[in-house]
Amino acid sequence: MSDDQPYNPATFRPGGEFDLIDWIRQRSGSHHRLEVGIGDDAAEIAWPEPQNQLVAVDMLVEGVHFDLEQATPEQVGRKALAVNLSDIAAMAGRPVAAVVSFALPRGRATELGKRIYEGLARLADSLDVALAGGDTTVTDGPLVISVTVIGTPSTGGSVLRNGAQPGDRLLVTGCLGFSREGHHLDFTPRLSEAAALQNSGGLHAMIDISDGLAADLHHVLRASGVGAKLWADRIPVRDPAPSTGTSDDPRTPLEHAISDGEDFELLAAVAPDAAATLLAKPHCETRLSDIGVVVQGHSAELLMPDGQLVVLPPLGYEHQLD
Amino acid sequence: MSDDQPYNPATFRPGGEFDLIDWIRQRSGSHHRLEVGIGDDAAEIAWPEPQNQLVAVDMLVEGVHFDLEQATPEQVGRKALAVNLSDIAAMAGRPVAAVVSFALPRGRATELGKRIYEGLARLADSLDVALAGGDTTVTDGPLVISVTVIGTPSTGGSVLRNGAQPGDRLLVTGCLGFSREGHHLDFTPRLSEAAALQNSGGLHAMIDISDGLAADLHHVLRASGVGAKLWADRIPVRDPAPSTGTSDDPRTPLEHAISDGEDFELLAAVAPDAAATLLAKPHCETRLSDIGVVVQGHSAELLMPDGQLVVLPPLGYEHQLD
Repeated sequence: MSDDQPYNPATFRPGGEFDLIDWIRQRSGSHHRLEVGIGDDAAEIAWPEPQNQLVAVDMLVEGVHFDLEQATPEQVGRKALAVNLSDIAAMAGRPVAAVVSFALPRGRATELGKRIYEGLARLADSLDVALAGGDTTVTDGPLVISVTVIGTPSTGGSVLRNGAQPGDRLLVTGCLGFSREGHHLDFTPRLSEAAALQNSGGLHAMIDISDGLAADLHHVLRASGVGAKLWADRIPVRDPAPSTGTSDDPRTPLEHAISDGEDFELLAAVAPDAAATLLAKPHCETRLSDIGVVVQGHSAELLMPDGQLVVLPPLGYEHQLD
Repeated sequence: MSDDQPYNPATFRPGGEFDLIDWIRQRSGSHHRLEVGIGDDAAEIAWPEPQNQLVAVDMLVEGVHFDLEQATPEQVGRKALAVNLSDIAAMAGRPVAAVVSFALPRGRATELGKRIYEGLARLADSLDVALAGGDTTVTDGPLVISVTVIGTPSTGGSVLRNGAQPGDRLLVTGCLGFSREGHHLDFTPRLSEAAALQNSGGLHAMIDISDGLAADLHHVLRASGVGAKLWADRIPVRDPAPSTGTSDDPRTPLEHAISDGEDFELLAAVAPDAAATLLAKPHCETRLSDIGVVVQGHSAELLMPDGQLVVLPPLGYEHQLD
């Protein structure tokens, strides 16, 4: 509070928060859904059908979710929006608008704020997501960015984690593992893939893989009260990092694919007929892999290439708070 | 990232983030508007009429907006929601749901997270605001909390800053100044007062006083292209802090009331007839004061008790970023 200064247009200073807010207002421009945009007490959004709405929020903290030595501010802004769009995709929803708040390190706040917002706005523009407002503040700690995305459910209704049924095929988009090598900064939220899965007519449950395939699979299994069998050799593994399999990183590529997290791909439980139709279609962009089947019970088993059947625990990452 | 731990229910640790998330899920319970509550990828809210929606977001940072030596975690959580409700009130809107994200200092994250959420949830419960979701993370820096509130415009439409007309009376709720003495931690968002102002039929413009009366008045004047005349002796001044008028704090109570900020009262421009009707009603709870009149031009003048007319600059506080 000690660094706050009386605000007076006559002595308007380039480093004040109103400078950044003005820049953001100009960068945002207008959007057909913004009946009231940035600059009043709240934004008003012309809401499309259906009337119900989806809300997702994610906060990224420097040193926990990104490092500014490895990521540009534009990438950080893009990721902060993209992780929320991935959540909306996992509901088979459609994003409509987003708001952003950030705590910016004192001293380089204006530059960082503009670049983060630019990265975020570019992704929003490309997906017709209205940037409806925000809040900027300074911090003496690490950079923090929080994004809230609101959207509409699909006309077929939201797809939850609890609808998987024995016999369903387990489909996954894209490739898994090694996301920390760069993918987590430039992934494409699987919105169109989610719509295609929903349009198949057989989509029973879906989640985005943020904690890791094994952990997120278990979220679905627990919510649905079912088990699963996976084929290890069908899991689409991203190209390994150079250190994989060395003493620095003794884990196999498969282990990475199962537990790395931050893949932001979709894991879907789909009725067998619908899954077969989806898999038979040519996939011009995003690979769709059939990695297993939902079974009765509540455990997950992994059939290894050597024929061994191993239990797949809910490996993944949990942030330790205390 | 180095402190993340493999998540395994068999070794479930009390200090992990899923412990806090489970507590929050239980604390939240159900709400009649939550078709999908906390625990899936996104929440789904049954949206009331009107279909359009308001969105407001605010982020509070420890050391900038509060200090944990002076405020309890419950008060911090309450304030984080209340500042957003004040924004919705300033649009004459109605809050429907909120999401919260926080970065919690490592080591005492679970305790702080629960207490902050408890303070926030109590205020939400009292106003029937659905807590639709959240995100928790740790930080090695100060505590950061971001709240997004979504709501509906009033049936009369949103009340913006740009509708003030010459002849309008300038009305203000409650008392101003010295909010840092405690008011900023326990203020009541002026939702019902906003509705009463809107129901008067003559409400032309409104803002909540967060930057200070003078600064926020100028926001309205600039947006509306008008000027204002205020009577100093009609400005409702809160009881001064003991240090006021001493060498430690040479500013007068009036100067505090004009520029302190964080009052979270409403400043409204209301047609004279409607204003007279509103002022004639007995105010059982919140005082409503007629402090001035909107005039042509673009400057604000303050008539002092001694008859002197002084120019009122947009005094207030701007956070310095760089």
